Amino acid sequence: MNKIPEVTLQRLPVYLNYLKELDDSDYTVSSRSIATALKLGEVLVRKDLAMTSAIGRPKIGYIRTELISALEEDLGCKVIKNAVLVGCGGLGHALMCYNGFGNYGINIVAGFDNDRSKIGTTINNKPVLDGETIPSNEMTKNSDMAIICVPKEVAQLVCDKLVKAGIKAILNFSPTLLHAPEEVVIRDIDVAASLAVLASL
Amino acid sequence: MNKIPEVTLQRLPVYLNYLKELDDSDYTVSSRSIATALKLGEVLVRKDLAMTSAIGRPKIGYIRTELISALEEDLGCKVIKNAVLVGCGGLGHALMCYNGFGNYGINIVAGFDNDRSKIGTTINNKPVLDGETIPSNEMTKNSDMAIICVPKEVAQLVCDKLVKAGIKAILNFSPTLLHAPEEVVIRDIDVAASLAVLASL
Repeated sequence: MNKIPEVTLQRLPVYLNYLKELDDSDYTVSSRSIATALKLGEVLVRKDLAMTSAIGRPKIGYIRTELISALEEDLGCKVIKNAVLVGCGGLGHALMCYNGFGNYGINIVAGFDNDRSKIGTTINNKPVLDGETIPSNEMTKNSDMAIICVPKEVAQLVCDKLVKAGIKAILNFSPTLLHAPEEVVIRDIDVAASLAVLASL
Repeated sequence: MNKIPEVTLQRLPVYLNYLKELDDSDYTVSSRSIATALKLGEVLVRKDLAMTSAIGRPKIGYIRTELISALEEDLGCKVIKNAVLVGCGGLGHALMCYNGFGNYGINIVAGFDNDRSKIGTTINNKPVLDGETIPSNEMTKNSDMAIICVPKEVAQLVCDKLVKAGIKAILNFSPTLLHAPEEVVIRDIDVAASLAVLASL
């Protein structure tokens, strides 16, 4: 759908956060100033920004507010996207309470869990629904994305249910490899592994 | 310290998880079988494994248990590494309760927070200490790594304190760019941004 490559897309939120934190007195920004601040190569930043919908001006660079707006456009921040979350334990609960998703137009509409004591409650005003109903539930059917926060032993089962419901993108926090049809995009976040890699550098 | 490049290191936990999930009947594994299962290029997997301490045998591949052991060695799983966590809110609390760090030899020894109602309590048998004491605390001084889970407005302040205490590696969950001396390695996990990128693919 998006013509911007994934490696570039992954850097856009970094640029966006940086630009938002700048003072209003920074009316214009250049690839060079961004590269210096973020300790990235200037050529890399210039190429990345050239792939966005932002329009730079020779010798001036970018109007900061325009660049922010363009990056938000390219990251889909202005389009509301529904997501469901499966596994309302510690991490799932924390993510349902996190309000930073709204900056990217992402709306977590519901959580699913198999724990009877959680089903029927709400977390951050979002309902916790019965995990058994994932494939048929309107909340899933009205969502494009899902976040998996269940123990790894049941992650594939949950993934299958989500795919059945038509979910096309999954962010997986379970430290296991999930299998899904090719049209479903899965990305993994393994916090313990990330820390281990950091320790090995 | 480690001669394996970071991009390769990041894939080692993926290989490790896959190998651990295999049946005992899989006595040997090959680069090809791993590549097929993980939907990665065979050349990539072969090159990655060649950089590890594992020893492959021509026409046979790797003894599975030996490869697991080698990957664990290269990821430092067999060396206990202490870490502190700062910001015991929803996400921080969830990470302190997560027991998956132990697989990588990582031991979260304490949490820090500024909330008086949390200081002096324990989470998953780990003490919650006063955030003001970060630079001087023995827990910080005996740790090499830290996890930052505080709101972005105070993340840099926390980072400065950790650096002052001698922390050399930081995993940052705050959606903001942290500045630290060059010898300190910082990696960021921005969950909302990851989901936004996933939605843009």
